[in-house]
Amino acid sequence: VAEEGEFDRIARLFRPLARKLPGALGLTDDVGFLPPAAAGEALIVTTDTVVEGIHVLPGASPLRMAEKVLRVNLSDLASKGARPLAVLLNTALPHELPAGWLDAFAQALGRDLDRFGAGLLGGDSVATTGPVTLTLTAIGSVPEGLMPRRSGARVGDTIWVSGTLGDGALGLRAARGDLPGLSGEDASWLADRYHRPQPRLALGRALLGTARAGMDLSDGLPGDLVHICRASGVGATVDLAALPLSDAARRAIALQPALERRAWAGGDDYELLFTAAAVDEQAVREAGTAAGCPVTPIGRIVEGSGPPLFLDRTGHPVEGLRGWTHF
Amino acid sequence: VAEEGEFDRIARLFRPLARKLPGALGLTDDVGFLPPAAAGEALIVTTDTVVEGIHVLPGASPLRMAEKVLRVNLSDLASKGARPLAVLLNTALPHELPAGWLDAFAQALGRDLDRFGAGLLGGDSVATTGPVTLTLTAIGSVPEGLMPRRSGARVGDTIWVSGTLGDGALGLRAARGDLPGLSGEDASWLADRYHRPQPRLALGRALLGTARAGMDLSDGLPGDLVHICRASGVGATVDLAALPLSDAARRAIALQPALERRAWAGGDDYELLFTAAAVDEQAVREAGTAAGCPVTPIGRIVEGSGPPLFLDRTGHPVEGLRGWTHF
Repeated sequence: VAEEGEFDRIARLFRPLARKLPGALGLTDDVGFLPPAAAGEALIVTTDTVVEGIHVLPGASPLRMAEKVLRVNLSDLASKGARPLAVLLNTALPHELPAGWLDAFAQALGRDLDRFGAGLLGGDSVATTGPVTLTLTAIGSVPEGLMPRRSGARVGDTIWVSGTLGDGALGLRAARGDLPGLSGEDASWLADRYHRPQPRLALGRALLGTARAGMDLSDGLPGDLVHICRASGVGATVDLAALPLSDAARRAIALQPALERRAWAGGDDYELLFTAAAVDEQAVREAGTAAGCPVTPIGRIVEGSGPPLFLDRTGHPVEGLRGWTHF
Repeated sequence: VAEEGEFDRIARLFRPLARKLPGALGLTDDVGFLPPAAAGEALIVTTDTVVEGIHVLPGASPLRMAEKVLRVNLSDLASKGARPLAVLLNTALPHELPAGWLDAFAQALGRDLDRFGAGLLGGDSVATTGPVTLTLTAIGSVPEGLMPRRSGARVGDTIWVSGTLGDGALGLRAARGDLPGLSGEDASWLADRYHRPQPRLALGRALLGTARAGMDLSDGLPGDLVHICRASGVGATVDLAALPLSDAARRAIALQPALERRAWAGGDDYELLFTAAAVDEQAVREAGTAAGCPVTPIGRIVEGSGPPLFLDRTGHPVEGLRGWTHF
């Protein structure tokens, strides 16, 4: 029967990824049972699609695609303080994929699922005449009532980010060989930041009860912060000089100063953007220390309804910062 | 900001589809809360991807695509006796879509969600250089312990199907104008059977406690029944003369007898395939009557581990029946 090849292939490659989840029924059924939430916790779900040539480079390796599609979803869970439990995977694959592509993809996904403590609950596998298109849906668990929403920011809150910003946007350039003059080490470090998002799961968890609003930075600070402002009915001012930049990003900008705006506004960082009451500064810093992830205050929530205001070193607004660096 | 156009568009088109689900947070956040299961019920999840030109005709209308991607998923829930609660939708759309495509899609999806009692919990919207690619993930609720699995068939069970078989495969031909001589009315009826799966939700629910194994027919009887046999560790014999065919299918076959094999084996019917103990024949028939959906016994579960045996009118095995009619 035509289907048996596909059936056996799924069994061989993907069933091992489901072994931790009894509800996956060994991927032998049409449905999976959602894992139960722990006492006092609620289940949340998020989903993202990754298209070859749009969200990853054309011809991206199966390793890159597996890590990207899983981690961008786990980053959403991280921003909500959730613990990852289970994922569903839908693959739409062209017929002309290199031999071994799916094997390498499944192995990479399995390693990453193990690393982050989640399992494969189900999915679908179809053919496409287009580019590799992957949809991953991630299910996580959060303590009831503590999840930071986009709508939770209050006037007077401090705006924080985790890690460093701009590495994703500069890393995309590095991956394409567009940062001439930069050391190979810096270029490779930045490219890795673009290729392999680091979901800030420990930080998100440590911030529960402290972070009032939260989301992850995928489209760039200007494009993402506006969502918090709109959902919360507030304004924001950001001190651009306060944005945390990596040493590699600083060196790239020293070579090509125009890149600074890209670092401020570019996407693909998958750091956390969150707000907390000003009195909770110490609690935020302790969460960062506990999670082993730097946290930096970058601005303040203010009254208002316009887009966030980005101020330069002299306190003047910088106009025209745009997020979203997909190519 | 670049994202605001997309943000507003999603709000306008899709937020109304989320209004029934408080956990969707108005589609203004990065995640949604899964709806709680009712007492004594468990949540199940299923997901399917639909690609333009593979699972629907090239250039399929937004109405056709919305109905297809929702209903093929609800059909999986139906086969498990589940009540649909919530769906997630991921769209990957080419830039050159006709104006108004997404509006028409969202309207059609909204109507169908209302019809089947589910709401939109979240999703993602990306661009693609390939064909329209839609992934829908459906969450439903089933009474604990009653869900028919693929692995539940027992030797001696009667094999049943709902509705009529082969309409999907013949309907695909009708939709492409490949059934010369057939009346316009029959061609249109068959094409509709291909375009608009009818998830047998009421029947699936009525069969809870009676159906032992169950799944929906998407790839065709031979390709799908083998899954039940493998998962259950049993064999099966099917009496091809017993397969329920619609009047339109019978007339198409009368014009072109070679189509009979396609009707037996073709996919895209989205009828239920299930087994029940022989003593439960009356209970199955009553479930069919209660649900307003015909049910037909077509064979028996037997000992064995090979592929199902399909017997013609004279009791001889028919070889080489293959499912899966995607073009």
